[in-house]
Amino acid sequence: MDVELHFKVQDLNARYVHAIDADRLEEWPDFFAEDGRYRVTTVENVERGLPLSLIYATSRAMMRDRINSLRNANVYESQRYRHAVGAALIEPADGGIVRAVTNFLVARIMHTGETTLFATGRYEDRIALAADRPHFVEKTVILDSRQIDTLLAIPL
Amino acid sequence: MDVELHFKVQDLNARYVHAIDADRLEEWPDFFAEDGRYRVTTVENVERGLPLSLIYATSRAMMRDRINSLRNANVYESQRYRHAVGAALIEPADGGIVRAVTNFLVARIMHTGETTLFATGRYEDRIALAADRPHFVEKTVILDSRQIDTLLAIPL
Amino acid sequence: MDVELHFKVQDLNARYVHAIDADRLEEWPDFFAEDGRYRVTTVENVERGLPLSLIYATSRAMMRDRINSLRNANVYESQRYRHAVGAALIEPADGGIVRAVTNFLVARIMHTGETTLFATGRYEDRIALAADRPHFVEKTVILDSRQIDTLLAIPL
Repeated sequence: MDVELHFKVQDLNARYVHAIDADRLEEWPDFFAEDGRYRVTTVENVERGLPLSLIYATSRAMMRDRINSLRNANVYESQRYRHAVGAALIEPADGGIVRAVTNFLVARIMHTGETTLFATGRYEDRIALAADRPHFVEKTVILDSRQIDTLLAIPL
Repeated sequence: MDVELHFKVQDLNARYVHAIDADRLEEWPDFFAEDGRYRVTTVENVERGLPLSLIYATSRAMMRDRINSLRNANVYESQRYRHAVGAALIEPADGGIVRAVTNFLVARIMHTGETTLFATGRYEDRIALAADRPHFVEKTVILDSRQIDTLLAIPL
Repeated sequence: MDVELHFKVQDLNARYVHAIDADRLEEWPDFFAEDGRYRVTTVENVERGLPLSLIYATSRAMMRDRINSLRNANVYESQRYRHAVGAALIEPADGGIVRAVTNFLVARIMHTGETTLFATGRYEDRIALAADRPHFVEKTVILDSRQIDTLLAIPL
């Protein structure tokens, strides 16, 4: 049923962004398959067919490493994100996988309280929805702007 | 069923903003009835009962002309939008039409990468939802700010 | 049913923010129980376990007083809000109450037209959903930034 399907994707997206925004970053890798892929790129790269990535992780282990680095570097403490995600466009694919495209806007709040519109773009996801624990097989974060802060550290 | 109704409106809104944000502007007129109306105004005009519009199109043909102009002027290439739309407030009307009011926030991303909160407001729509292809009979974009960039070019 | 439950919360949230954004502030107290609580605090206070509040109302009567003050002070006329709220994370609690956590981004539009990203954060709500008129028993607005404009006047 269409409504049920959309609801499950919406719920996964909501839990994903709440975990990040509440600084529960250790939970972030658990939203992915063991060999899941997380990639951050720009719309410019995608339109030019360039396989360039700003961030590319191909397993949960790599994602855990990334979070460990963040925690040790303590960079993450100086900032916080707040996501607004839209309704997903969904397309069933093979093997119980669905493809979902979702708009996002992310505000960044510095420890000083300064708030800016940090990043916008769309998620292009492949989701294992039928699993006991719905999760991302692949998440591609396509940023609208190529001018992303070099402190891009927290997962988007 | 209420949930089903809201879901259909949400889906139409999501497809509408994704088409614009992905620069598939040629698809934009197809979200309207052949004699559909698209109007951009401000909350100030609405509250004063003024029938002024910043943009007013009364057919798909006019909308197509508008997109052609944009493409030829090449203005659109220098900017990109990203919409966040909320949940709609829905009211069934006569003849299979529903009225929907929806909040929106639009970020604008210049080709330099500069990102700003460009426009906010609400959509007041009349939607032919029972049609094979749900579409807008009328879409009124009510902007919160009267200080809108004169480059207002891409549909909101 | 999960979908139905989420839908009801989404609908309450949508009506709540539309009332505020359309300046129908007199309706605001009616979204609460007679002895409902409305509290605005910061994520910093919450994480430190500090019971500090920027705003705290413990009844509809107090909320009505607040709106009356706003109207008389005429401060509210100089600004307008526009909310983007996300999908809620929901947890059923006792006595027909559900707990809901929802992301929000609020734009503020000054009468000059100047638009800024004013506030971001999450709502932590307790909702009487089974009532004829679903309403908030408690709404805690947790702001990401401690640097909130002193003109914080309109309900968030």
